[in-house]
Amino acid sequence: MDAIERLASLFEHFPGIGPRQAERFVQFLLRSSPGVRRELAESVQALARDIRQCSECMRFYSGESKTCGICASASRDKSLLAVVASDADLAALEKSGTYRGGYFVLGGTLDLASEKTDRLRVKQLLTHINDLRSRYTDLKEVILAFPANPEGDATAAKVREEILDLRNPNIKVTTLGRGLSTGSELEYADPETIKSALEGRR
Amino acid sequence: MDAIERLASLFEHFPGIGPRQAERFVQFLLRSSPGVRRELAESVQALARDIRQCSECMRFYSGESKTCGICASASRDKSLLAVVASDADLAALEKSGTYRGGYFVLGGTLDLASEKTDRLRVKQLLTHINDLRSRYTDLKEVILAFPANPEGDATAAKVREEILDLRNPNIKVTTLGRGLSTGSELEYADPETIKSALEGRR
Amino acid sequence: MDAIERLASLFEHFPGIGPRQAERFVQFLLRSSPGVRRELAESVQALARDIRQCSECMRFYSGESKTCGICASASRDKSLLAVVASDADLAALEKSGTYRGGYFVLGGTLDLASEKTDRLRVKQLLTHINDLRSRYTDLKEVILAFPANPEGDATAAKVREEILDLRNPNIKVTTLGRGLSTGSELEYADPETIKSALEGRR
Amino acid sequence: MDAIERLASLFEHFPGIGPRQAERFVQFLLRSSPGVRRELAESVQALARDIRQCSECMRFYSGESKTCGICASASRDKSLLAVVASDADLAALEKSGTYRGGYFVLGGTLDLASEKTDRLRVKQLLTHINDLRSRYTDLKEVILAFPANPEGDATAAKVREEILDLRNPNIKVTTLGRGLSTGSELEYADPETIKSALEGRR
Repeated sequence: MDAIERLASLFEHFPGIGPRQAERFVQFLLRSSPGVRRELAESVQALARDIRQCSECMRFYSGESKTCGICASASRDKSLLAVVASDADLAALEKSGTYRGGYFVLGGTLDLASEKTDRLRVKQLLTHINDLRSRYTDLKEVILAFPANPEGDATAAKVREEILDLRNPNIKVTTLGRGLSTGSELEYADPETIKSALEGRR
Repeated sequence: MDAIERLASLFEHFPGIGPRQAERFVQFLLRSSPGVRRELAESVQALARDIRQCSECMRFYSGESKTCGICASASRDKSLLAVVASDADLAALEKSGTYRGGYFVLGGTLDLASEKTDRLRVKQLLTHINDLRSRYTDLKEVILAFPANPEGDATAAKVREEILDLRNPNIKVTTLGRGLSTGSELEYADPETIKSALEGRR
Repeated sequence: MDAIERLASLFEHFPGIGPRQAERFVQFLLRSSPGVRRELAESVQALARDIRQCSECMRFYSGESKTCGICASASRDKSLLAVVASDADLAALEKSGTYRGGYFVLGGTLDLASEKTDRLRVKQLLTHINDLRSRYTDLKEVILAFPANPEGDATAAKVREEILDLRNPNIKVTTLGRGLSTGSELEYADPETIKSALEGRR
Repeated sequence: MDAIERLASLFEHFPGIGPRQAERFVQFLLRSSPGVRRELAESVQALARDIRQCSECMRFYSGESKTCGICASASRDKSLLAVVASDADLAALEKSGTYRGGYFVLGGTLDLASEKTDRLRVKQLLTHINDLRSRYTDLKEVILAFPANPEGDATAAKVREEILDLRNPNIKVTTLGRGLSTGSELEYADPETIKSALEGRR
């Protein structure tokens, strides 16, 4: 396997990339200047050096501090904790501009076939909740902010159960509201969404 | 224009049909048996003869009775009235199996460019609400069940205003709940939907 | 089944139309004026009255004459006969503006699973070729103008064999040229197309 | 700009990659093992070290030799030279298994807006043709194997003119055959393709 093939096979593991696009990436880099290739190689290596995983919320961030900017911020609402599947979902909640509480990145959703949870940071979440409780006495609500699909629902059910087992009577566990999302037409909405939209009317 | 072209030009007015598919429809009918063509022609004509528009909810239905089965039913909840844009939206609500109130078909949504409402049955809706109030004293809520898009929102705003002008203190006007619809991933959800999902959490 | 359902079930048999779009067609007709519905019903019925199938090329055409305009035309090249699968393919060849010979509509392509040819007018084609030969002594080439897919290729192989069995030494049987079609990029072309494009270079 | 943002902005320059997928690539690398990141960085750097551009055909290849395997091969047909736009197009011709001549990678196609050719290796091609002529006296045909689109056609016209200016009476300049590509249906084919398919029938 030569350098072209080896690099193409690495790109093939990138999310959403097939053999053909992997080859195009290599051709693109072959046509690029040595400076571009060096910058790419260095930036990939820099990830490990410059990016840390926050010891509290588990998200990746850039910086010298022990915890990320959100976890370290005094102005965030310590009574709310949103549990999300991924850094991308955390970023989506943050961009909406309405949430001011804390986060915890679970690292994925439950695989429905295997029902295995070992890839997910469920234990770390429980430890984190207990930790938050001991530091800030006012944690009141854990929001399970998972995608509105069977995997997300199964993950929410599992995590809810584990949190309830902590027997912390003052913590409420909630899930995100369901209903018509922006752009939805009733005619094409599934019965479950219509049901949620009717129940959540106001 | 021969019979093939005339029929193709009629099919071109069908929703979502372009010139090419219109031609395919004609070719399909040319290859069909005379019996199929006769049945189609008769069924089209039968619409006017067999289908009536309900004088209460304005939907199309088949039957001899003056009002449709839903409006005539004693078992429907007379305290709820859902205002929908089209028969198709009414059918979607009905299929969800959770709604047991009455309906009113407005006939469309507001055109944002012209803001004209003359295509919509706003006056008939107001008359219908007054009528329902006089017959069943317990109409308590009008649900504006429009699509979750700018046209639907503008229609809801307009209709809400008109209903409030009736000064019926006992009628609440609601809209469908917004949030994540089935299958939504947070990562791809728009900020408005995430905001609604956070507000509607439970 | 009421008139709405009966008409919807007829539209569901239209090519490319599913249950949902069939329902939309019915709703469209319900909202249309009685005049539109009457015109549609009459146009469907008019097909049988005004449209004939040409006794020579088997295509559908409008008119009183026994044969269609193309078959009746003295200016068409009688030495060429293009055999096509459908009226739509005939129309595509005609629109290209380069073909001036005659046509024969076979009525479809071979089904690869059953290999049955009884739906196809193979016998009529052979009779038509003999007939042309006796009337115009100069029929020189039969062009098998089928789609460039396995069904088209199998149909061409079968029809070619049958024509060769006629033992008409002066008739050449050809198929359409293969190669890059407009817009094709080499990178995404299949090996068979590239092979044809190389062989057909000029 | 932190390491995550810097790497994402590099991935955004990859062909066909937008901001969202660039972010997903970075998240994928953050979750990957240090070994995977190191291998990627090294493979990118290895391109410059291990991959050379062939001094004859200008394609990228892996090896110590001065020319690529195809140019160095004694078994390739020296009478044919295919001029292609890119390494990917060369690979497509090679995969078809029918072409046994030489290649020259032009480096792109003409930009129709600017009509500039300075990005393309037109001069190198002419030098290469003269060079081939002096070494192998039997170069007989230059095949302009460009995509079947306006850019490809304009490039072919330009390159053909330049080659004819060389006044080498024994060199024939050809282009790839046009026609129905595999899977094409006549009904949806453009007139130009049908014209080529009719002309190229056999």
